[in-house]
Amino acid sequence: MIHNLAKRAHDRNWTLDPVIRSLLDTDWYKLAMQQFIWRHFAGTRVRFTVINRTASVPLAEVLNEAELRAQLDHVRTLRFTKSELIWLAGNTFYGQHNIFSSGFIEWLSGLALPPYRLAREGDQFRLDFEGPWEEVTLWEIYALAILSELRTRRGYARLDEMDLDILFARAKARLWSKVERVTGVPGLRFADFGTRRRHSFLWQEYVVALLGARLPDIFSGTSNTYLAYKHNLEAIGTNAHELPMVLTALARRGQLRGCDLAGAQYEVMRLWQEMYGGAMRVMLPDTYGSTWFFRHAPDWAADWTGVRLDSKDPFTAGDEALAFFAAHGRDPREKLLIPSDSLDAQRMLGLHAYFGGRIQPGHGPEDFRNAADFHDPAKWVHVPRCRISAGIGTNLTNDVADCAPLPVPEFLPISLVCKVAEVEGQPAVKLSDNYAKATGPTEEVAYYRSVFGAEGVADLPVST
Amino acid sequence: MIHNLAKRAHDRNWTLDPVIRSLLDTDWYKLAMQQFIWRHFAGTRVRFTVINRTASVPLAEVLNEAELRAQLDHVRTLRFTKSELIWLAGNTFYGQHNIFSSGFIEWLSGLALPPYRLAREGDQFRLDFEGPWEEVTLWEIYALAILSELRTRRGYARLDEMDLDILFARAKARLWSKVERVTGVPGLRFADFGTRRRHSFLWQEYVVALLGARLPDIFSGTSNTYLAYKHNLEAIGTNAHELPMVLTALARRGQLRGCDLAGAQYEVMRLWQEMYGGAMRVMLPDTYGSTWFFRHAPDWAADWTGVRLDSKDPFTAGDEALAFFAAHGRDPREKLLIPSDSLDAQRMLGLHAYFGGRIQPGHGPEDFRNAADFHDPAKWVHVPRCRISAGIGTNLTNDVADCAPLPVPEFLPISLVCKVAEVEGQPAVKLSDNYAKATGPTEEVAYYRSVFGAEGVADLPVST
Repeated sequence: MIHNLAKRAHDRNWTLDPVIRSLLDTDWYKLAMQQFIWRHFAGTRVRFTVINRTASVPLAEVLNEAELRAQLDHVRTLRFTKSELIWLAGNTFYGQHNIFSSGFIEWLSGLALPPYRLAREGDQFRLDFEGPWEEVTLWEIYALAILSELRTRRGYARLDEMDLDILFARAKARLWSKVERVTGVPGLRFADFGTRRRHSFLWQEYVVALLGARLPDIFSGTSNTYLAYKHNLEAIGTNAHELPMVLTALARRGQLRGCDLAGAQYEVMRLWQEMYGGAMRVMLPDTYGSTWFFRHAPDWAADWTGVRLDSKDPFTAGDEALAFFAAHGRDPREKLLIPSDSLDAQRMLGLHAYFGGRIQPGHGPEDFRNAADFHDPAKWVHVPRCRISAGIGTNLTNDVADCAPLPVPEFLPISLVCKVAEVEGQPAVKLSDNYAKATGPTEEVAYYRSVFGAEGVADLPVST
Repeated sequence: MIHNLAKRAHDRNWTLDPVIRSLLDTDWYKLAMQQFIWRHFAGTRVRFTVINRTASVPLAEVLNEAELRAQLDHVRTLRFTKSELIWLAGNTFYGQHNIFSSGFIEWLSGLALPPYRLAREGDQFRLDFEGPWEEVTLWEIYALAILSELRTRRGYARLDEMDLDILFARAKARLWSKVERVTGVPGLRFADFGTRRRHSFLWQEYVVALLGARLPDIFSGTSNTYLAYKHNLEAIGTNAHELPMVLTALARRGQLRGCDLAGAQYEVMRLWQEMYGGAMRVMLPDTYGSTWFFRHAPDWAADWTGVRLDSKDPFTAGDEALAFFAAHGRDPREKLLIPSDSLDAQRMLGLHAYFGGRIQPGHGPEDFRNAADFHDPAKWVHVPRCRISAGIGTNLTNDVADCAPLPVPEFLPISLVCKVAEVEGQPAVKLSDNYAKATGPTEEVAYYRSVFGAEGVADLPVST
């Protein structure tokens, strides 16, 4: 047994094991949104802030502040590399060439992340990112992934080498049981949306590489741009609440030309389709309540490709979306639903049964608890009501609770978000289809509700 | 990422990846028996032969003959190393110092394995080892472990790196579920008896090291001498059928002084206790039928420490053994049962419930399917009827069937044995408590049955 002396010395020698290895290690939609912001709203001053919705976990006590600073500082030293920018410019996304303009790529090449503000407040951290929207926006995913993985590392500290080996053996066995469960289900499609709350970068990479290799017809790709780049996978993504939140906040102050508070989210769509069009036209209707959104949406919105379902019970939300298309005379079977809220394999298969096929008389979605049922034509025939493609996050990339041979509370995912809090010094607001997911100061939330109402809004448990 | 260039080149460079790394890589009882043979029966000519009881597996088609020869040849180049011999001489076994005499150790230092004879017969191999008993005896375990691991490697050839990773992840997860199942069961004890039919050396090493570290009060040790030496574990073992088989074959020809056919197996015991005594006095009553054995055993046999149960239903066999001790006026509670035939966790726990404690009214052994039941005093109280310590073989070291992500028939264990076939040119016979496990020519088996009868012998499925 000859040891690799250089490796052994190096393994005990590092000063920082970076969580974020590349500026591409972010959701692809952040880059699509960043170009949108850079083109139309460059210089808009925003503040993003991290919110730990799992207040029972005292993050500032679990994590070491100096380590957190070191990781955040490291992100500020990163730059998009030449190879990465060539790939961004040359790759096709959703079948389209030249999604990113040469001007934007040129601007990206000089980008460095703006400063952060970190302070302790009780047993939590206050972590803010303030500056020009087109720069600040990228902080969201890096910050969340860092907090998530530093927590994981605290968990590792409870385990010896043998424990760690069992941890990953069981995590891989669990992952494989998911693969077996979905293998061969006709028409099933899903993507990895799990960058922000992943167990670790390396575990996400393992999961994504395995799914890419073993479920080539079912796993459509990953939201993680770096993993798509490194592993030759499709980069997947739609768009996020920050766009309507910022534009609506601007409209609230009369700073969005030609748009009032209620119309700003449709202005997002108008500008988005002008920039991207095609398959990237997937709307996110729940920022101020989906029911209100669909009732007031312009007819051209029904030309969009699909709808992302993010905070309402997805069975209800999907029916509502399909009814919108039908009411405007478009064929729902051509439309795409993307459920992305707290999905796991079980729920994904239930939604696939409900939207993706025809359930035979005497059987309901509850008959689809086992993937095997999908192979039984007596129960199920693949005659889709619409197209459906799930986005699975935490349950894919951070589903290792109970895999360690002893209890590790740090492996239980928490509900951590990084949301736009202020726009030009004024509060930003999200209402959502779920009261528990609303963000913004109480008075502002009340004002927004007076405009958008609360029809179709419910109280649902918030998981990760 | 800096590669270890020497390692990478070496990994693609080897001519032989040895299955047997050390002559210590054998069951410890082989060494105890070898000293017995060396002292009393040196020079007795025997022939051992490999028997594949799973005839449906065409070993000569599955394995490459040249690879098999290379592995067998490699064993002949091995010698006990100085460190190994010092350990054998200096270690305590079953609490006794100086188990191995300096004369025997000296003789071991010069030992090289005698030649083998390998030929193809139809789709099976004929593999024989002939020569002085004290040398030939060691071939048994090396030969079986080589055949078993070469079969494993054929299975590996069906798998790519990702498949292999899933294979071991799931095998480790399964192993850990066994650990969880037995953790905390009062009084439970078991040892690894799985060298001869292991998946591979490295997997056996993983299993044994994990059990040694995580079940220190339950896992009593391993029959594998090399692993005991390397990992500071207890070497465990009793004695095997070859002793009564050879001595009885000698007696059959009038070549065992003062002993007839029926008495030879008790002569084994007399010589064994003279040499070892103490905790090593564990009898193996089933060579010619346990019922006959106990009926004719001398009274001093009831002074022995315990009984190994190897071919009869172990619930029946254990009751029979305890009845023997009671009938001779010895307290069964002080005696030790060692079930070792086709055990798995389920059966071990059932036996532990039956012999190792008092089952409360209204509950039977079938209530102990879940280890958790052992913690419920309403069902079970640890008031042993005797001592019991299981020996688990294949189900511990070769329980990876269905762990690979695709079917690998080579991972299903087969029933492979290496038995003494001839003694001084005359056939050796075993009857066993199970008709299916009898060995020897039909006429000789018939003759032995005319002496020993068939009381208590049954037809049981032979697993590995």
